[in-house]
Amino acid sequence: MEGICYLDNSATTPVLPEAAQKAAWVMTQEFGNPSSLHTLGYRAKQELEKAREAVAARLGAGPQELFFTSGGTESNNLALFGAAWARKRLGNRIVTTKAEHDSVRNPLEELARQGFEVVALAPDETGKISPEALLEAIDETTILVSLMLVNNETGAIFPVEEAARAIRRKKAPALLHTDAVQAFGKLEFSPQRLGADLVTVSAHKIHGPKGAGALYVKKGVHILPRTFGGGQEKGLRSGTESLPLLAAFGEAARLLPRPREALGRVEELNRLLRSRLAGFPEVTVNSPEDALPYVLNFSLGQVRAETMLHFLAERGVYVSTGSACGKQKPSHVLEAMGLSRERVSSALRVSFSRFTTGEEVAALGDALEIGLKTLARRPGG
Amino acid sequence: MEGICYLDNSATTPVLPEAAQKAAWVMTQEFGNPSSLHTLGYRAKQELEKAREAVAARLGAGPQELFFTSGGTESNNLALFGAAWARKRLGNRIVTTKAEHDSVRNPLEELARQGFEVVALAPDETGKISPEALLEAIDETTILVSLMLVNNETGAIFPVEEAARAIRRKKAPALLHTDAVQAFGKLEFSPQRLGADLVTVSAHKIHGPKGAGALYVKKGVHILPRTFGGGQEKGLRSGTESLPLLAAFGEAARLLPRPREALGRVEELNRLLRSRLAGFPEVTVNSPEDALPYVLNFSLGQVRAETMLHFLAERGVYVSTGSACGKQKPSHVLEAMGLSRERVSSALRVSFSRFTTGEEVAALGDALEIGLKTLARRPGG
Repeated sequence: MEGICYLDNSATTPVLPEAAQKAAWVMTQEFGNPSSLHTLGYRAKQELEKAREAVAARLGAGPQELFFTSGGTESNNLALFGAAWARKRLGNRIVTTKAEHDSVRNPLEELARQGFEVVALAPDETGKISPEALLEAIDETTILVSLMLVNNETGAIFPVEEAARAIRRKKAPALLHTDAVQAFGKLEFSPQRLGADLVTVSAHKIHGPKGAGALYVKKGVHILPRTFGGGQEKGLRSGTESLPLLAAFGEAARLLPRPREALGRVEELNRLLRSRLAGFPEVTVNSPEDALPYVLNFSLGQVRAETMLHFLAERGVYVSTGSACGKQKPSHVLEAMGLSRERVSSALRVSFSRFTTGEEVAALGDALEIGLKTLARRPGG
Repeated sequence: MEGICYLDNSATTPVLPEAAQKAAWVMTQEFGNPSSLHTLGYRAKQELEKAREAVAARLGAGPQELFFTSGGTESNNLALFGAAWARKRLGNRIVTTKAEHDSVRNPLEELARQGFEVVALAPDETGKISPEALLEAIDETTILVSLMLVNNETGAIFPVEEAARAIRRKKAPALLHTDAVQAFGKLEFSPQRLGADLVTVSAHKIHGPKGAGALYVKKGVHILPRTFGGGQEKGLRSGTESLPLLAAFGEAARLLPRPREALGRVEELNRLLRSRLAGFPEVTVNSPEDALPYVLNFSLGQVRAETMLHFLAERGVYVSTGSACGKQKPSHVLEAMGLSRERVSSALRVSFSRFTTGEEVAALGDALEIGLKTLARRPGG
């Protein structure tokens, strides 16, 4: 994909050639069913366990704590339904935020319809969640707390460790789930250090393929399955494992540098973009100062985000207007932050990967500059 | 995979090189998120819809009736939970068979725990389901009927059309689901001709990759979603679509011959194996005469199936002891047929693909002959 400037890495990432090759090799050469009793099945099972070890190692977890799924959405659904119904007898309250991804918000909406009390905290206008509000919301009837580690639209880092402390302080019978899809490989963390019981990760945000994810379930923690069948993944997630994608996921995880190795460079890119944006008086930054630097969200003022998105795409520069999954709708994250309608409707999200270059950021800056001039002149632009 | 004799195609199949290449190409070159608003997203969405059209066309359905999932197990779970709860107010009875795959049996067990009345019909000793018993079991409170089109262990063809007629005759408010994983591409059928409302298919049984499947939902039929999130697949199955695998699924579907083109050759292979088995007096065939010829199940007498399976695998001949998913457990299908314990514990399943050769069947026959002689002599063998 030469000649393009892909700055939408929070939506999805190109797959590393090594990972794609691994998938193709598994498809044609190591095609056994991991559940088959014969040698081909055994070899497939070994590949599967190698992938599990690779992803678990990068997450700082034991392989026996890692359950493969078809992606972040399935992991989030499994974690939330599985935890809520497993703990139903201990209480009825679920605490979350208004800035979660749809794959957490919508399962929780369904759980609310099923009778659970769901308390959702609003972020402040910088996109951050207050640890005090969390402590207040969690009580002795709280059975589940779900908050993401890094917000996909602003890069804001949410206080997951504080949530774990609040659960302990309030003696709540709660499991702590964090959707770490945007944090995995970018922020230094481990489930144990966070105090999380359930952690969601996804392959296609770390240069692995779409269709593979995992749920970390802390050793000793019990949640209910949601997909019933052949009993794969120790009965928690039935269905023939997608060995090609999971092997590629393992490869992508193996090739992940330690977060701190890439962070300095990405911070530099973020600073570069922020300083360029500072030269456009109509632009307001929506991401907090201490956000994970992989994501930068900003509003264009009078130019609608979608208009700019297409203007940039015509020039080979790819960004987004927020979550790819929530396309067409105004961002629930920015709305929950209490931003004005104009700021919400003119908000762009730029997201980097460890492969993003300064040239790409400069190209974005140049295209934005022309766009702001050109589109501002158009009536209704 | 030269030099091996892979006769376990009902467990899984090697991926066609064209399909594997397509997946690898999508991963690195067409990596956009189908939900992204920009050009890369649009192109990814086009690839996705091309795959949908290819699979739908092979199934004899409209693309708008086809919903992609992570595989047969997810499709079956979605169909069963989605239909049962959508029709809850109309009745409480679900009719099925005792010979379904675990990914139908176990969701129905869960639905029974949730309060539904599940009536499961036993196959006769040839593995077939009686249309009369079906007609008797379906009543005006029946909201769901689920029976597979081709049994994965015996190849028996189940009377799905008769089930549709019975539903009409009894004026039952029932949706008809069929798990057609083993039939797709091998048996000539269409959802419409069967009278089915919900049809499950899977990529990795038709030389596509593991981790991709689809559920056909007849136009106008409403079932409830089970995975909540970004609203992909018209809200029925959220989660970023696995474009690499789905594009490969599309490719595998495109390359499927019409069932009748391969059927004659596979019938010939089946006859070849049956006549070879007729020479082993200790062997009894468990598949009905009119089974789909892709599967042949037979019992070895005093030699345990697992012992023979490993003996054959050491010689590069791969078969199975039944469903790959149910490994280690005695076959619930053969047990439901009322076969003796010895016949169940000595049962092997051989399954062909359109690429299987007469040489492979001859190699299996030779290896079986040696195995039967060698293993019968071993005490406890």
